[in-house]
Amino acid sequence: MKNTFGNSIAVTLFGESHGEAIGAVIDGLAPGIKIDKDYISARLDERKPKGKISTARREGDEFEIVSGAFNGYTTGTPLAILIRNTSTKSSDYAQLKDTPRPSHADYTAEIKYRGYQDYRGGGHFSGRITAALVAAGAIIRYALEAKGIKIGTHVLRLHGITDRAFMNLDEDIAALNGVSFPVLDDGAKADMMKIAEDAAERGDSVGGVLESVIIGVPAGVGEPWFDTLEGVLAHALFSVPAVKGVEFGLGFGFADAYGSEANDEFVIKDGAIKTTTNNNGGINGGISNGMPITFRTAIKPTPSIFKKQSTVNMKEMTECELEISGRHDPAIIHRARAVVDAIAAITIADMLALKYGTDWLGESN
Amino acid sequence: MKNTFGNSIAVTLFGESHGEAIGAVIDGLAPGIKIDKDYISARLDERKPKGKISTARREGDEFEIVSGAFNGYTTGTPLAILIRNTSTKSSDYAQLKDTPRPSHADYTAEIKYRGYQDYRGGGHFSGRITAALVAAGAIIRYALEAKGIKIGTHVLRLHGITDRAFMNLDEDIAALNGVSFPVLDDGAKADMMKIAEDAAERGDSVGGVLESVIIGVPAGVGEPWFDTLEGVLAHALFSVPAVKGVEFGLGFGFADAYGSEANDEFVIKDGAIKTTTNNNGGINGGISNGMPITFRTAIKPTPSIFKKQSTVNMKEMTECELEISGRHDPAIIHRARAVVDAIAAITIADMLALKYGTDWLGESN
Amino acid sequence: MKNTFGNSIAVTLFGESHGEAIGAVIDGLAPGIKIDKDYISARLDERKPKGKISTARREGDEFEIVSGAFNGYTTGTPLAILIRNTSTKSSDYAQLKDTPRPSHADYTAEIKYRGYQDYRGGGHFSGRITAALVAAGAIIRYALEAKGIKIGTHVLRLHGITDRAFMNLDEDIAALNGVSFPVLDDGAKADMMKIAEDAAERGDSVGGVLESVIIGVPAGVGEPWFDTLEGVLAHALFSVPAVKGVEFGLGFGFADAYGSEANDEFVIKDGAIKTTTNNNGGINGGISNGMPITFRTAIKPTPSIFKKQSTVNMKEMTECELEISGRHDPAIIHRARAVVDAIAAITIADMLALKYGTDWLGESN
Amino acid sequence: MKNTFGNSIAVTLFGESHGEAIGAVIDGLAPGIKIDKDYISARLDERKPKGKISTARREGDEFEIVSGAFNGYTTGTPLAILIRNTSTKSSDYAQLKDTPRPSHADYTAEIKYRGYQDYRGGGHFSGRITAALVAAGAIIRYALEAKGIKIGTHVLRLHGITDRAFMNLDEDIAALNGVSFPVLDDGAKADMMKIAEDAAERGDSVGGVLESVIIGVPAGVGEPWFDTLEGVLAHALFSVPAVKGVEFGLGFGFADAYGSEANDEFVIKDGAIKTTTNNNGGINGGISNGMPITFRTAIKPTPSIFKKQSTVNMKEMTECELEISGRHDPAIIHRARAVVDAIAAITIADMLALKYGTDWLGESN
Repeated sequence: MKNTFGNSIAVTLFGESHGEAIGAVIDGLAPGIKIDKDYISARLDERKPKGKISTARREGDEFEIVSGAFNGYTTGTPLAILIRNTSTKSSDYAQLKDTPRPSHADYTAEIKYRGYQDYRGGGHFSGRITAALVAAGAIIRYALEAKGIKIGTHVLRLHGITDRAFMNLDEDIAALNGVSFPVLDDGAKADMMKIAEDAAERGDSVGGVLESVIIGVPAGVGEPWFDTLEGVLAHALFSVPAVKGVEFGLGFGFADAYGSEANDEFVIKDGAIKTTTNNNGGINGGISNGMPITFRTAIKPTPSIFKKQSTVNMKEMTECELEISGRHDPAIIHRARAVVDAIAAITIADMLALKYGTDWLGESN
Repeated sequence: MKNTFGNSIAVTLFGESHGEAIGAVIDGLAPGIKIDKDYISARLDERKPKGKISTARREGDEFEIVSGAFNGYTTGTPLAILIRNTSTKSSDYAQLKDTPRPSHADYTAEIKYRGYQDYRGGGHFSGRITAALVAAGAIIRYALEAKGIKIGTHVLRLHGITDRAFMNLDEDIAALNGVSFPVLDDGAKADMMKIAEDAAERGDSVGGVLESVIIGVPAGVGEPWFDTLEGVLAHALFSVPAVKGVEFGLGFGFADAYGSEANDEFVIKDGAIKTTTNNNGGINGGISNGMPITFRTAIKPTPSIFKKQSTVNMKEMTECELEISGRHDPAIIHRARAVVDAIAAITIADMLALKYGTDWLGESN
Repeated sequence: MKNTFGNSIAVTLFGESHGEAIGAVIDGLAPGIKIDKDYISARLDERKPKGKISTARREGDEFEIVSGAFNGYTTGTPLAILIRNTSTKSSDYAQLKDTPRPSHADYTAEIKYRGYQDYRGGGHFSGRITAALVAAGAIIRYALEAKGIKIGTHVLRLHGITDRAFMNLDEDIAALNGVSFPVLDDGAKADMMKIAEDAAERGDSVGGVLESVIIGVPAGVGEPWFDTLEGVLAHALFSVPAVKGVEFGLGFGFADAYGSEANDEFVIKDGAIKTTTNNNGGINGGISNGMPITFRTAIKPTPSIFKKQSTVNMKEMTECELEISGRHDPAIIHRARAVVDAIAAITIADMLALKYGTDWLGESN
Repeated sequence: MKNTFGNSIAVTLFGESHGEAIGAVIDGLAPGIKIDKDYISARLDERKPKGKISTARREGDEFEIVSGAFNGYTTGTPLAILIRNTSTKSSDYAQLKDTPRPSHADYTAEIKYRGYQDYRGGGHFSGRITAALVAAGAIIRYALEAKGIKIGTHVLRLHGITDRAFMNLDEDIAALNGVSFPVLDDGAKADMMKIAEDAAERGDSVGGVLESVIIGVPAGVGEPWFDTLEGVLAHALFSVPAVKGVEFGLGFGFADAYGSEANDEFVIKDGAIKTTTNNNGGINGGISNGMPITFRTAIKPTPSIFKKQSTVNMKEMTECELEISGRHDPAIIHRARAVVDAIAAITIADMLALKYGTDWLGESN
């Protein structure tokens, strides 16, 4: 089930950057989830390119729900979302047909699809596809919020600049809502944007690290060996071509800690079992422990830069130089947050549906 | 399919630390794969506790293949491996029934399984279960080696000490083979072992980072959206309770690099397309590009330490102190390499079977 | 994965009878399969309502391939097909909202979807959805034919009338191609159509039995316990709401035969192993044996009849009478053959992809 | 997931007729299901060969639960069942290595597994494997009974003799419990046994039709397109090598009925919506409607007969004659009922777990 993700709630993505449309089918959605089009549009807006550090390709992202919704609510049958591609300039990509961009999927797609792939604009590997994922995630996330489950993501790091850590989770999550470049500390934000804009001006690109938190997930969610919360979340996150690292809680920081420093001790707080620290990011043995779920996602710099690069001509098997034209993103880290939020929503909802049954998500209505 | 992993080749794990037996069923194995019992034992040996930094529980790990093999070869039908538990001391764990160990799965298991879980020795969450995974992985890895695909893992970092990077991959992989504490640089190895032994003496524990490489995987393996090579590998790796981070290539290091620094440029080498650097860890767009696949796995310090810790009594809902007795590992980082190797073998074989068909893996015989 | 079918090649269906559109996503299609739009239209035409024994709703069934195809060939990424609903008369169905049609899915949908289902025209349970399945199957079937695998289905029985058995398979399959009411014997065909038309005139409906044959499938395809050829085919066939029985080879006829009569003895024919009879329908132990695969599918009479029937008002929990108006099919048996052919194509291709790898199906181009 | 069946509750089967052991792993079992060993043994006993019409191979079927159970209850982690093979006579099968039995899986296994299969006693295709399935089903069925869901199966037809239909379902199900040759009418039973014994004496074999009923399943269970109740049940039933037909309700009888005769009209009965007839076998649109679920399963005569048959030598590619010795079943129809009951239990439980969540099945304890 290569292009479908999830067990009880499953999402299938389709589409190419310069094809007719992109879209998603969500299967296993409970009946009775409200379709709030403004909420979905707001999530799509968080993903939209804006300003100098984003591609000049600006799509309206008008989504159409062609099935699975009726009278403003989900029906419980597969919900298909369609987003037409309207701003395509195929001519931009003719040069890339035989000369793959370094670190992009042009070369691996050519090998895997034996030359039949839609090479225009990265085809199925384009970040464009994530618009459908964000729309699908938004429908689910809206229902999760009605259940008290909230998700927030900020740019934790960008080329040497580090944002402050999450503090008051409810407030921080609210503060990030709808913001184009989601950073908690204003100084860090200004510094990050400056670096990204400078890189853009030089025809270069930047990556970064996103930090996410999910609050409100009850203890007991996750399936050890092999569908742990960490495993399933990481699986979905690594589907995004730009993602190259995922860590939970202290993550790689555990390598330099002793058990006596890293262990999260238990206490009773307001009649419930909590931990004093949250180094495990809310997950023990792959199962949620009721603390906030925290994870970080490493995003590589966008490979499509405007500087001259060495590559090969795949047809002629010769080395050559490549200077990319067209419309590309010098930074996607801030837009990627909408994708990470969507993936978190889909994954958590799927795990909860397994535990509580498929109807659960729609029952608040 | 919560406790089964894989599509074309699928592994199901079962067992508890102090139950009758642990085991694995491998489905989708090609017929005709040679069962080399010495090779499997050698892999199990790499996982076995040894010396002062490991648990005093020493099992023979005698495995029995009860189905799916005939006359020394796989039959193509499900292969079931059984490893009996022989060295169990249930009494060690009576104290833990109601007082969960900090950062272990005792608490989440109690919530998830509503008190019915086998709490002895961590039950299904015990590292013991990984013996079955290592045996299953060994059968597959043997067949992969016959196809020229090799896997190697070393301890890259342990509490401030860093091993040297991989250099000559063939030689390094060979040098790590069968070694109990797999570090490439002898000085780093001595330093790491000293730190681990010191921690053990203090009743404390250490974590670390493993670095792995897979060579010989052809370009074109992986399924974008959502079964990318990265996603599937990470999913399986995060199943191991101790794993808290996974990164590919530069991983989190991408956050501080510009695209112009991070991109892997293409060249022609010996008539084949290669990249000059390998910052992407052999994977672009979720698909192998023919370069070595490199990834790092963060392992948290084992939570079962002998120091006094704060916890709660889940029955009485009171706070209390916990001093663990019994047999535990001050370090598992070196033993975890056998598990990571096994997971890598299973995952890669599954992706290759999807591409080439299920018979492919057995065809070298 | 409730609304997705298949392992290596997976089809997801979406849509409602009176929604915006119906459609399908095919995942796992090999790159390089030719998209022959005329061939697809011809298959859709075999499914279209025609004449007096079909619904007055006549859709153009204009399909749009919105992703996964490029320059006339499949790309290897998910292929999404969209068919807009153009001839909808929602008013026809207002009366059915609370008074379920006997033997239709109105009642079970109300219970399952808690009142949120799109009740218009049977919603997701409408035969309309099969148009997308037929289009998806056609793309795959075209590729199978290039591999020498052919599928044919005729109406074997309709209310007491029985068609002749398959004889020369190649000729019979060719003769059924494109025919609206597929019966091999002209006399039987006339009799069947007369019965169906008479029933239509009385406001009644008829069912029937379809008999199908698949030729060219090599021996060795199928996965025992549990993905047998029989099991997977039956699973997909029973997805169609009207299907109530599936049998292979002698099927229920085996009940009255001795083993000595029923066994298919082996012979050598043209240097290959064949059987003298084919009572097992080309399948032994769930695996193809190289003989033609034969199966029969029982189709119940369409439940939407124009006669007065007893039903209940679900809201008021009272008994009442129902007289249906609107557009319905007195017979779907002849149209169902296109659906059975599509399901056979999808299923066989999936099993072959598992055996030979996902690229196999596109390799004839 | 070829040898694993189920979504929320999944069963993996392993083992060969003459290997070390057969077994099953059940994943997704709720914690807290009581393990009633006597109940499981009683179900295994219904499957055991007895009398003149069964194989002389008589196994004790001592099952061992090696994981997933603790203190007499399921833990919620994978439950593995092991049944050792004790009565094996491999010598019986040496003659069959190259000369496949007509209508058995010997030939297709040779092709599929390229000669590596364990050919002794039919290997993985042996009816012996079903013992593990029956044990797995028994654990689940016990829990279903605590929820008011009961299953019963009788031999409806055997070579011209027909049993009476189900009447009082509760009483009939109780009457079939533990009976070796489950027929409701004593006269029909005597006639059937006579025919089977006569066939046995002649070295021949018989098939038959099983009829099953499941009561207590609430309305609303089943997932249209594609995991309908009918599709999932049929999929699992057709996994059994001897099964060649499955029908629900009127099944193939629908072919000769008009809609006005076949439709099940709705009525209010005891405050609940019921149907006056049950021609649809309790399922509309693939979803349970609250009426008893009824289906029939066609079982072909056992292919291993003692009469001389024509076959081929696969190695030498010559035709030859075959006279089987060894231990075989002249009739399995009565033993197959235990298998059908087990499959029904597993399938229904899986569908209910999807609807109500995985914990549901264990909650009566």
